[in-house]
Amino acid sequence: MSPSGTQGPWHPSYADGVMAADQRFAARAFHATFLDVLTAHLRCVARLDVARGHEDAIATLDAAIQAERDRPPPAPAPGVPDLYFGLQRRLEEAVGADALAWLRLGLSRNDLDMTVYVMAARQRALTVARKLGTLQDALLLQAEDGLETIVIARTHHQPAQPSTLGHRLMAAAAVLERDQQRLLGALQRLDRCPLGAAALTGSSYPLDREASARALGFATPVENTLDAVASGDGQLELASVAQVLATDLSRLTHDLLRDAEDGRLHLPDDLVQGSSIMPQKRNPVALEHARTRFSRVAGGAGALTLLSHNIPHTDLNDVGTDAQEPFHALFDALDAGLDLLVACLQGGRWDQARLAADAAASDTTATELADELVRSFGLPFPKAHQVAAALVARMAERGRPLQQADPDDLVAAGGPALSAEALSEALSPDAFVARRRGLGGPAPESVRAHLQRLRERSAAYHVVVAEAATRIDSALRDLRTRGKDVPG
Amino acid sequence: MSPSGTQGPWHPSYADGVMAADQRFAARAFHATFLDVLTAHLRCVARLDVARGHEDAIATLDAAIQAERDRPPPAPAPGVPDLYFGLQRRLEEAVGADALAWLRLGLSRNDLDMTVYVMAARQRALTVARKLGTLQDALLLQAEDGLETIVIARTHHQPAQPSTLGHRLMAAAAVLERDQQRLLGALQRLDRCPLGAAALTGSSYPLDREASARALGFATPVENTLDAVASGDGQLELASVAQVLATDLSRLTHDLLRDAEDGRLHLPDDLVQGSSIMPQKRNPVALEHARTRFSRVAGGAGALTLLSHNIPHTDLNDVGTDAQEPFHALFDALDAGLDLLVACLQGGRWDQARLAADAAASDTTATELADELVRSFGLPFPKAHQVAAALVARMAERGRPLQQADPDDLVAAGGPALSAEALSEALSPDAFVARRRGLGGPAPESVRAHLQRLRERSAAYHVVVAEAATRIDSALRDLRTRGKDVPG
Amino acid sequence: MSPSGTQGPWHPSYADGVMAADQRFAARAFHATFLDVLTAHLRCVARLDVARGHEDAIATLDAAIQAERDRPPPAPAPGVPDLYFGLQRRLEEAVGADALAWLRLGLSRNDLDMTVYVMAARQRALTVARKLGTLQDALLLQAEDGLETIVIARTHHQPAQPSTLGHRLMAAAAVLERDQQRLLGALQRLDRCPLGAAALTGSSYPLDREASARALGFATPVENTLDAVASGDGQLELASVAQVLATDLSRLTHDLLRDAEDGRLHLPDDLVQGSSIMPQKRNPVALEHARTRFSRVAGGAGALTLLSHNIPHTDLNDVGTDAQEPFHALFDALDAGLDLLVACLQGGRWDQARLAADAAASDTTATELADELVRSFGLPFPKAHQVAAALVARMAERGRPLQQADPDDLVAAGGPALSAEALSEALSPDAFVARRRGLGGPAPESVRAHLQRLRERSAAYHVVVAEAATRIDSALRDLRTRGKDVPG
Amino acid sequence: MSPSGTQGPWHPSYADGVMAADQRFAARAFHATFLDVLTAHLRCVARLDVARGHEDAIATLDAAIQAERDRPPPAPAPGVPDLYFGLQRRLEEAVGADALAWLRLGLSRNDLDMTVYVMAARQRALTVARKLGTLQDALLLQAEDGLETIVIARTHHQPAQPSTLGHRLMAAAAVLERDQQRLLGALQRLDRCPLGAAALTGSSYPLDREASARALGFATPVENTLDAVASGDGQLELASVAQVLATDLSRLTHDLLRDAEDGRLHLPDDLVQGSSIMPQKRNPVALEHARTRFSRVAGGAGALTLLSHNIPHTDLNDVGTDAQEPFHALFDALDAGLDLLVACLQGGRWDQARLAADAAASDTTATELADELVRSFGLPFPKAHQVAAALVARMAERGRPLQQADPDDLVAAGGPALSAEALSEALSPDAFVARRRGLGGPAPESVRAHLQRLRERSAAYHVVVAEAATRIDSALRDLRTRGKDVPG
Repeated sequence: MSPSGTQGPWHPSYADGVMAADQRFAARAFHATFLDVLTAHLRCVARLDVARGHEDAIATLDAAIQAERDRPPPAPAPGVPDLYFGLQRRLEEAVGADALAWLRLGLSRNDLDMTVYVMAARQRALTVARKLGTLQDALLLQAEDGLETIVIARTHHQPAQPSTLGHRLMAAAAVLERDQQRLLGALQRLDRCPLGAAALTGSSYPLDREASARALGFATPVENTLDAVASGDGQLELASVAQVLATDLSRLTHDLLRDAEDGRLHLPDDLVQGSSIMPQKRNPVALEHARTRFSRVAGGAGALTLLSHNIPHTDLNDVGTDAQEPFHALFDALDAGLDLLVACLQGGRWDQARLAADAAASDTTATELADELVRSFGLPFPKAHQVAAALVARMAERGRPLQQADPDDLVAAGGPALSAEALSEALSPDAFVARRRGLGGPAPESVRAHLQRLRERSAAYHVVVAEAATRIDSALRDLRTRGKDVPG
Repeated sequence: MSPSGTQGPWHPSYADGVMAADQRFAARAFHATFLDVLTAHLRCVARLDVARGHEDAIATLDAAIQAERDRPPPAPAPGVPDLYFGLQRRLEEAVGADALAWLRLGLSRNDLDMTVYVMAARQRALTVARKLGTLQDALLLQAEDGLETIVIARTHHQPAQPSTLGHRLMAAAAVLERDQQRLLGALQRLDRCPLGAAALTGSSYPLDREASARALGFATPVENTLDAVASGDGQLELASVAQVLATDLSRLTHDLLRDAEDGRLHLPDDLVQGSSIMPQKRNPVALEHARTRFSRVAGGAGALTLLSHNIPHTDLNDVGTDAQEPFHALFDALDAGLDLLVACLQGGRWDQARLAADAAASDTTATELADELVRSFGLPFPKAHQVAAALVARMAERGRPLQQADPDDLVAAGGPALSAEALSEALSPDAFVARRRGLGGPAPESVRAHLQRLRERSAAYHVVVAEAATRIDSALRDLRTRGKDVPG
Repeated sequence: MSPSGTQGPWHPSYADGVMAADQRFAARAFHATFLDVLTAHLRCVARLDVARGHEDAIATLDAAIQAERDRPPPAPAPGVPDLYFGLQRRLEEAVGADALAWLRLGLSRNDLDMTVYVMAARQRALTVARKLGTLQDALLLQAEDGLETIVIARTHHQPAQPSTLGHRLMAAAAVLERDQQRLLGALQRLDRCPLGAAALTGSSYPLDREASARALGFATPVENTLDAVASGDGQLELASVAQVLATDLSRLTHDLLRDAEDGRLHLPDDLVQGSSIMPQKRNPVALEHARTRFSRVAGGAGALTLLSHNIPHTDLNDVGTDAQEPFHALFDALDAGLDLLVACLQGGRWDQARLAADAAASDTTATELADELVRSFGLPFPKAHQVAAALVARMAERGRPLQQADPDDLVAAGGPALSAEALSEALSPDAFVARRRGLGGPAPESVRAHLQRLRERSAAYHVVVAEAATRIDSALRDLRTRGKDVPG
Repeated sequence: MSPSGTQGPWHPSYADGVMAADQRFAARAFHATFLDVLTAHLRCVARLDVARGHEDAIATLDAAIQAERDRPPPAPAPGVPDLYFGLQRRLEEAVGADALAWLRLGLSRNDLDMTVYVMAARQRALTVARKLGTLQDALLLQAEDGLETIVIARTHHQPAQPSTLGHRLMAAAAVLERDQQRLLGALQRLDRCPLGAAALTGSSYPLDREASARALGFATPVENTLDAVASGDGQLELASVAQVLATDLSRLTHDLLRDAEDGRLHLPDDLVQGSSIMPQKRNPVALEHARTRFSRVAGGAGALTLLSHNIPHTDLNDVGTDAQEPFHALFDALDAGLDLLVACLQGGRWDQARLAADAAASDTTATELADELVRSFGLPFPKAHQVAAALVARMAERGRPLQQADPDDLVAAGGPALSAEALSEALSPDAFVARRRGLGGPAPESVRAHLQRLRERSAAYHVVVAEAATRIDSALRDLRTRGKDVPG
């Protein structure tokens, strides 16, 4: 390898099919981050004894690195295997081979790349964390709006019981809260800096790994240099958390799409599409596209698993360079899916009249009638269940809504003589919901209590995410600014 | 449905192909847990106003439930859809339909099943947590033994640099520590009790969900009753954590198998197999079987994802009953894989002579020679790198080991006049390792420091796991004992 | 290894966690097939020169193998690694070590196991092939019944255009036909016998591999002995075909479940379940369970992929013994899912009145109105599309069904003066369908033509499947019978 | 929708996150194919009765479509949802709305898109088919070269038996042949044209679907119009075939990489990389990158499965537009992986001296010694196996190579008095191989026979692939040329 890092020439299947493609991707995704990591490393080198007397060369090199920030990243070129060598070649042109040499001291592509990848993954995690916060806010708002809106909940693809829109959306919010926790766990495990691990054993130069970690906004350096360059389980965990999240969201999306399909949920015009051939169409495509994004996310996690599967535990392209494109494609899909879902929840409106009509026509209060018969007449529950079922059957047979059953119907169904008022109450969806006011139940006061607790925890979550972002941003701002103004 | 819950008859494709198979599985995996949950629920019912005056019937029923603990679980039978109904039929025979009715008050198969499944998942998580602790202990012991054992580490499938066995194993231990953290996160999110959610909206009876959660050893009830029966993201997360763990362990297994393949690692006789046809064989099959278990785990997580994918967010068999067999098959495989790996690490011995011979023959100290030339002669690193590469080529050409290069060789390779002693030192694997004593490096003192920190954190982990197990065990012991001795 | 093949003792994690579990599975799944393969091999040995003069010993051994067919398979025992060694031990007890020795000549567990696994996979493929035939028959019958039943087809989760139930089900049948073709392709590639490959290089004895392949009902021996024991791509392909099939069927199941959810499809009583708490419930669980089976199938294929991923291409447990349990679990799930779907399609009835009401209320004929305006008035299609859209909007605004639009409405929507009759015709779902009589369209004559072609091809498929089954069955019957009556 | 197909404005999360991204991808991947399908459709429209008298307008439109071939595809723009509408807008500018209207007659985005996607998938399949042919040629050449090169084959990660490089590579070639067959099956099922299906029920205009299928190089139109736009199982099958292929190739790659790791296989300089920090490195990265590509392929197939899972069987983005980017990413990875593997097999050289040394040192001929003792002394095989194992142990203990055992050693190991010559022969790897000359064995004549048969079949495969490509190319050339020269 020449001082400027040229090698090759390489076989076209390797040069074009692998290296050029990877370099283009790195240029798009990682250019600034590469410069950050090189800067942080160089400043550690600058503090070594061996650097004494070379302050000017190093400062010039530092300034040249910072100047790269304003240039377009180097394009693939013959003999240049990757973005890092492309940058080196440019820096060598700017400051000469001897000055450039300081950059390579105790640095390997292994720790350089891995630090870049971890920083990029951390950024993806933060972005998702923010979008999850926004989605949760949108869910909580709709849940609050829907605290008293009766919906007929299904189980096993059949109408089951009355509940409220608020209760239903709070179930989704509860899942999302756990997804947020999983994400914060993953983020925490990404908060360790590989830099200084060099090829895999660190360096015989006493580079201050604590300092470079701090400079790049990390909590701490990775504690074992082989672990630092070899493991990649942080990105695998993040993909895995995304897989669980995407699967969870595929269910929320399913239910929103089901509501939209039946006209219970109206999406705003800017989220639907017409048809090139069918004039009446108003397709809730935003939700459909969200679903496909979530499927791609879950699939992407499978790809990441395969990349890390049955390979040595050492520095390899499998968990390094070659995992980056699928990893970031996964998070592009996740971001897009989250954005779509946020838009649908922010812009969507449930059709109150339609939901009310559903409720009025529903026979799903039968459970409560059974409960009522136990309470008021001491019937054993299974017997009460039988009576309620007979009443359901009787009314269906006669083509009459269950809620209009009268005391005679109940007696005819084998039940006791409940008053008309009590029967009507027992069969009313509103009463059904109001009576379920225990912990976690759909009664507005129960849901409101949960909503308030979750709002508080959600506020705390926003703070944690914002603080993490701020810490990183301010570290990187320092790093970049200092370089421009006060070299060395 | 009759008071005793018989239904049907069902189509053979459903009765035999689905229900009987599921009931057999439930009988094998969940019998005691079903009885626990029924007990906890009944004791909540017993405290309701509506139960006043029925203490005897309820106590008799409670005793009958406890008596079921000593009987074999009911087998599939015509008209009985599942284990719960099988148990109900038995209890009805024992105490009559009226007494049995108390059990069904405010209880649904939905919350009953989900509570059972969460408790079983929690148990699997705890078992894995303990095995991970044992594996970590075994890794740390071998790492301590190997603190000074030089190994030649590979990157990209080529010898790279000297390190130590201890350093290498500590990298694996660092990954494992993160896997433990992920597992504890999942365990925490499983620590919430669905019971009392009934079908999905809870009950109009004021059942004390805090009390039943406590009785079953949970930290708290699930805060939304739809979430309680519908979500199942806890088991999905656990599967997902297992997927990351299994993928991580596939790499550790790969490396152990690679050592065994080359005779660097000797497995004890009770972990190898001979061949029915090849007399010289001594196959390290324990590691091979561990690998296949980890592949099955990762595959199983994919199946769990598919089961939860694109379905409504409500009570469904997809995340409930029908997910249980693949979920537990996944953890059977994981347990078996962990046990094998523990056995291999506890019983395996690295061949010191062979590792020493590898080290002596290695040319992987070239990096350090380059560093030395920078340090002692102020050569720019890329120039030093070139000289070292030329020396490697020269020695290979002459068929001489790099470590036996003399000062003349170095000069011939374009290098400066380094003393024989300094050259020999620069090329010595031991010195290579000793000089890498920064944070995370392979020098014995660095690895020992990491080992000590990790040992402390590992001890704390053991405590957390043991406390969780104790809390659950003692809650369940109370539940089971009280039922036997002091009914009601 | 002793003459009778005992080894060990082994570590409990290996003996219990791996070997005993595998042996129990093999005993359940492969007992008869093991005896078949041993028989076929022994009869090849019997024809070797080296066997001359030992006819009696070999005949005794052969008879002992056949006698094993009527005994329960050997249970796991200390020192016995697997079913094969368990059988050997029994045979040695029956005929002595010297006679038994003939069985081991030129035989390895590698080719023995792989032959057993391929035969079992072939059997699974044939079973699936038959079930697919039955499912296709059921689909075609329902399609024929539904040739004239108007359904409103959705795209993008919105009503799109009128079609017929027959047309819709024939689309599913067309997919199924391709799934059948894929399955036959996989079956063909499984039709090659590994036996005689021994460990991986065959034997120095001239065993007649053509003969043993024929004896086991194979078309031909595998042409390379390493390929024979190492590859396992046949089972991977079969799993992969099952994955595509299961994914296809998840969509058919989705649509049936959607119809059942809305009361458009009635499942018979023996395929639905009630609720333990909700008296009005009638859950189409057979379809829900079918869905979960298909999810498990697709997940299982992922596991098989992982088992074969990044491992050496040689004899290994990964594609051999350790792949069998997940492989067969996949096919258990597939069989169960297919059986459920067949039952639903055979027993299910679409609600004609409900479908007719849907059709009458639908505005999805708007496309045809646009086409009509082009045809009759020479309007450019986009203009006609605009007019039709305006009419849809106008009628919706006025709360009137599109099909009741009159010529004045059309004019008010910016359209030309179409006669009342022509307008009514243009808006009629029946006419919409009848006019789409091109190749593949929903007009009854088009669908009937497709149905007839597919019936013929389906009959040919049944023949191919039956012939394959017959060839195998008769080969195995010969093998088993001859052994009982005419040893040697 | 306006005549020129503008809609919107849309929400940025939809417009930018979904539509613009998809359009850019379509422009890159499908531009020419879109124009082909539009051309084929327009020429069908031109033959309708309704078109009589409008020949000039249609010819102008046709010419305008052909002119688009030489322009850059339209970029995303406000109000333009996709490439098709972008093209329409351009065509409207060129020929006016009235002429453009002919293009939209009986055409929907549904059948247009699906036809484009199937054509693109067909092209990917053909490209893979050609690359598989090239890979097979390279394998067969190396196999022929290695017919007599002894290699020591491993099973279960331990040396097992002598074989030849030719035998080993022919096992890989046998797998590849089956992969080729699977691919041809998938290609055949992609050879049906969706065009004319319109939205999902075809059109009331008698468009000649046979003609448009032919014009686009298809064998036949899809026989059901819903199937045509809804199913997408063809691309799923192709992904699935790629998954099996990639998994198979991951094993071949593993073995090549293992040989390269140990210096048994030398890759040419243009396929290896050095290190930025380790001067002695020569990393076989081409193989490592091939492995990561195959992992990505297998993962991509999982994503495709998820996209088609649990969704309605109708026209949807899930199997249409939104599946295209992951589908093509999968095939980009597969193409790159295949190219790398071809380059490694064409350029790689096995180190004959190293392989010979391996063979000389090996004790893996023990099986043959056992066979020899059976043959020459009538020992029962298990007894002979015991003797051979004892001899292996004895020689290992004494640190002497097995192949140098003398008759006294054999006797000391409990064996009979074999002559020195016969013993040496029995222990010789060459003789071991030469004696295994049965069907499929490693003896050069056996492997050569297989090689010849496979070469013939491979030649036939090349012809099938070339003919398919020619048919399509010539149809498309006709389509494109006729449009340019003889409009109408």
